[in-house]
Amino acid sequence: MTVPFTFALKATDGRARTGVIQTQRGEIRTPAFMPVGTQATVKAMFIEDVAAAGADIILGNTYHLMLRPGAERIAKLGGLHSFMHWDKPILTDSGGYQVMSLAKLRKITEEGVTFNSHLDGAPVFLTPERAVEVQCLLGADIQMALDECTPFPCSREEARVSLDLSMRWAERSKAAFETMSAPGQALFGIVQGSVFPDMREDSAKTLVGIGFPGYAVGGLAVGEGQEAMFDTLDATTPYLPEDKPRYLMGVGTPLDILGAVARGIDMFDCVMPTRSGRHGQAFTWGGRLNLRNAQYAEDLTPLDADSACPAAQYSRAYLHHLVKAGEMLGAMLVSYANIQFYQELMAGARAAIANGTFAAFADDIRRRYARADGTD
Amino acid sequence: MTVPFTFALKATDGRARTGVIQTQRGEIRTPAFMPVGTQATVKAMFIEDVAAAGADIILGNTYHLMLRPGAERIAKLGGLHSFMHWDKPILTDSGGYQVMSLAKLRKITEEGVTFNSHLDGAPVFLTPERAVEVQCLLGADIQMALDECTPFPCSREEARVSLDLSMRWAERSKAAFETMSAPGQALFGIVQGSVFPDMREDSAKTLVGIGFPGYAVGGLAVGEGQEAMFDTLDATTPYLPEDKPRYLMGVGTPLDILGAVARGIDMFDCVMPTRSGRHGQAFTWGGRLNLRNAQYAEDLTPLDADSACPAAQYSRAYLHHLVKAGEMLGAMLVSYANIQFYQELMAGARAAIANGTFAAFADDIRRRYARADGTD
Repeated sequence: MTVPFTFALKATDGRARTGVIQTQRGEIRTPAFMPVGTQATVKAMFIEDVAAAGADIILGNTYHLMLRPGAERIAKLGGLHSFMHWDKPILTDSGGYQVMSLAKLRKITEEGVTFNSHLDGAPVFLTPERAVEVQCLLGADIQMALDECTPFPCSREEARVSLDLSMRWAERSKAAFETMSAPGQALFGIVQGSVFPDMREDSAKTLVGIGFPGYAVGGLAVGEGQEAMFDTLDATTPYLPEDKPRYLMGVGTPLDILGAVARGIDMFDCVMPTRSGRHGQAFTWGGRLNLRNAQYAEDLTPLDADSACPAAQYSRAYLHHLVKAGEMLGAMLVSYANIQFYQELMAGARAAIANGTFAAFADDIRRRYARADGTD
Repeated sequence: MTVPFTFALKATDGRARTGVIQTQRGEIRTPAFMPVGTQATVKAMFIEDVAAAGADIILGNTYHLMLRPGAERIAKLGGLHSFMHWDKPILTDSGGYQVMSLAKLRKITEEGVTFNSHLDGAPVFLTPERAVEVQCLLGADIQMALDECTPFPCSREEARVSLDLSMRWAERSKAAFETMSAPGQALFGIVQGSVFPDMREDSAKTLVGIGFPGYAVGGLAVGEGQEAMFDTLDATTPYLPEDKPRYLMGVGTPLDILGAVARGIDMFDCVMPTRSGRHGQAFTWGGRLNLRNAQYAEDLTPLDADSACPAAQYSRAYLHHLVKAGEMLGAMLVSYANIQFYQELMAGARAAIANGTFAAFADDIRRRYARADGTD
């Protein structure tokens, strides 16, 4: 029998929450950070190490996977889990964000969005129904409703038009999902409304009216800055049901995440730990390090003695050498260490919330990262 | 007490030999393939996986490491083993080959070779004594005497002049090594003489006269072709002592290696498994595969069901996707699978020699690889 998708809140600390999402492929402990596996791989990482780092769930990108190798092909090959040897939950985005950021010649109508593939220019038509179909073909455990990722900055009028379209698409997405999905899968709606509190409230209420097993907050981390992002969360999470998971899309730095957890967010994804890892930027319990810096050339200190990650036990001198020499192992080790730091950070946040000490935990991390803040 | 460097021959089968080199950092089962760790990393591989694949020893490049991060720096940081987290034996080359193939503005005198770094143009003076010093600073268990890698093709006169210089350098290398080396380390001489059988014989005899605990055959796999390489080995190994290991430098394909084992070679190194791995070329028990080929796009067969390598259990379809998408994981998985195939091939060769069935083993591999021969 398929395990139904459920969310159980275990403890709260202020507005911060910790709980467990139960899925057919296992539990997701929240607050959760989902490593991004854009093209059916978490970049520069063996999938076993993603699990060993503590990840309960990874994210796959609908846009990338539908273009290459193709959703129908992945379905034919047994689905995304089997394809990439990951048997825990996968969340897929709807493709909307990448259509805006990567595709060429976008044209949005009521029906959907037409664009040309960034790979070969081939024309693609993506509708709310097709986005659900693609995610079902991939076999995603948690799917996202197609939305229009509102550009930033934008006027109130633009935000309103975009939001209304996204809300109509959310309704169509749910209808499609009810027809196409397999037991145990879940579809989340996405709150939009740019940085306008009244529109965020309106969007949240509309989606709750449609009814989803989880709600995402979209259209943030697009250049509005941390303060505006936090303000927008303050204007949004109060209108989302307590008993459903909340997912802030595409966020972020350790401090972004802790600030969002403090505002009641349960799930996160971001390319930052892996992208930074490929460029020699490390996240550690002691703060952020740029391993390219000459100061590390003879530094025998382990990358992060406070991390349990095997990759973090290499000396900064060795990692500096690998990064300077352009060796792939540099990207592999720092990506692994970063992903595990993010997982350890979330584990720390979960424990602190359960103990009622989340504010102190977040303050401590904030102090450790204070010196690196300017580069966030 | 330091374990002395020794070689024990366990069995022979025709001219093929199997044995064990004992070093202070553990045993090397021969015939042995040494993965190449050019810049203190076997490219795209975690060092634990190099060991898990079955490697008893890896190679480091004196030329690369002396330029970046620098031999004195590595010594200061505790030596190459500790730097890269590899506690088994390391063999370093002398730097001569890379001086010829990579450095700019080479000028060779009796004293040594002056060149400009390919990284920043800095002038470097490398002598037989400095090459030993660098290898001692790195902490190499097996070191190579600096030689001039004779260009191919070359005239008899050029080969003679080059060979004589290399033999004088070999003598100086041994004298330097006796002064500078640590207990348990070993220095090998390198036979040169291009493709001229009389010069190879002469070179082997000269080196044996100087006396080394192991002998390398250099200056091959430089464009002379497999037949000329095998002919040259036929003209060389009879003049090398039975009770010392013999190392064919920079070779090669599975069939090159098996042909050289049949001619009495015990040790090999080559960038082929890792370089090919980064380009989607796989070596398997079924032959060579180019994973970029469209024929693998929906092929759910594991890369190599006959290999025990975890990386070889991924489907060809998945690896095809990763390689086409330019994902680092493609390079990581295929490099790992290739290195393990090479190790499994050597293990198969060792067992076959011990059983007196090496010719049949090599014939079987030759048949499996026949279709790929044209691309060797």
